[in-house]
Amino acid sequence: MRPGYRKDKEALLARLHRIEGQVRGVTRMVGEEAYCIDVLTQINAVKAAIDQVGLLLLEDHVKTCVVDAVKHDREEKLDELVRAVERFARA
Amino acid sequence: MRPGYRKDKEALLARLHRIEGQVRGVTRMVGEEAYCIDVLTQINAVKAAIDQVGLLLLEDHVKTCVVDAVKHDREEKLDELVRAVERFARA
Amino acid sequence: MRPGYRKDKEALLARLHRIEGQVRGVTRMVGEEAYCIDVLTQINAVKAAIDQVGLLLLEDHVKTCVVDAVKHDREEKLDELVRAVERFARA
Amino acid sequence: MRPGYRKDKEALLARLHRIEGQVRGVTRMVGEEAYCIDVLTQINAVKAAIDQVGLLLLEDHVKTCVVDAVKHDREEKLDELVRAVERFARA
Repeated sequence: MRPGYRKDKEALLARLHRIEGQVRGVTRMVGEEAYCIDVLTQINAVKAAIDQVGLLLLEDHVKTCVVDAVKHDREEKLDELVRAVERFARA
Repeated sequence: MRPGYRKDKEALLARLHRIEGQVRGVTRMVGEEAYCIDVLTQINAVKAAIDQVGLLLLEDHVKTCVVDAVKHDREEKLDELVRAVERFARA
Repeated sequence: MRPGYRKDKEALLARLHRIEGQVRGVTRMVGEEAYCIDVLTQINAVKAAIDQVGLLLLEDHVKTCVVDAVKHDREEKLDELVRAVERFARA
Repeated sequence: MRPGYRKDKEALLARLHRIEGQVRGVTRMVGEEAYCIDVLTQINAVKAAIDQVGLLLLEDHVKTCVVDAVKHDREEKLDELVRAVERFARA
């Protein structure tokens, strides 16, 4: 079975490449001994970007896999979703 | 002036390289169309790792730059710290 | 239609009463000028307790209302869930 | 010694009373079996309000107790602050 995010795969890959670049940017700043608060600002930007990717994955998952699970009476998939939301909200 | 994290620079660079690898791992999983929840689990791991880097930076900043600011009566540095903590707690 | 959390209503009310008590406890501490960090520790406990209530509501919502929405092809309910998760994860 | 938030004590008490009222509002909604998502929206409002109180406490703490600690070379107070920020950012 294809994952729920298949239709957004290219968008997700583009965002993840951008995040890789952002992390390399943070690495460079630390290497050049940039000011702590400036590094922290970039780190917050990475967290926000990662979060956006997670939310898109969750959305696609709900709209495909969860819908599919309900139609096939696979209640364990609802538990799996709730646990994933819990971990995501706390991470 | 050297940044507060100078003594932890090597540790920070090592962690950031590991995070770059983790992000590349997420990119690979999406490229291979791994299961949504498995990708999300890896994304949460990246967020937690980024968070650890942010906390170490904050700690070093408090113990050096903030101490220095207090000794030189630069109250604006305390405002800057509080704003940074606020953005970090919300990101 | 009854809300999804109906079967957990008593448990939710009990938790909410406990949270009311916790908030009154924080009010009392501030009134008595308790040490900042001790007040903050109690505030974190309130946040964690509120979060638990939110997660239980989300879980019940997914397992009843969302299941019902899928069976009746009401896709707007899935969007509503995703937006709710997004706000919850960020609050 | 008076706590750092002393000058904001009245404002903090006013906010905490408002939060008590908000939590009672959530209790009432659950008692009346309001729609899950509406309850969740109110819960997010409580979390945001609690967060604001926490940030004000942290700010006052930094600008008084931490300043005082630096002036008296009490480094353990800086560790205490960093641990408090860590717990706050994760709660």
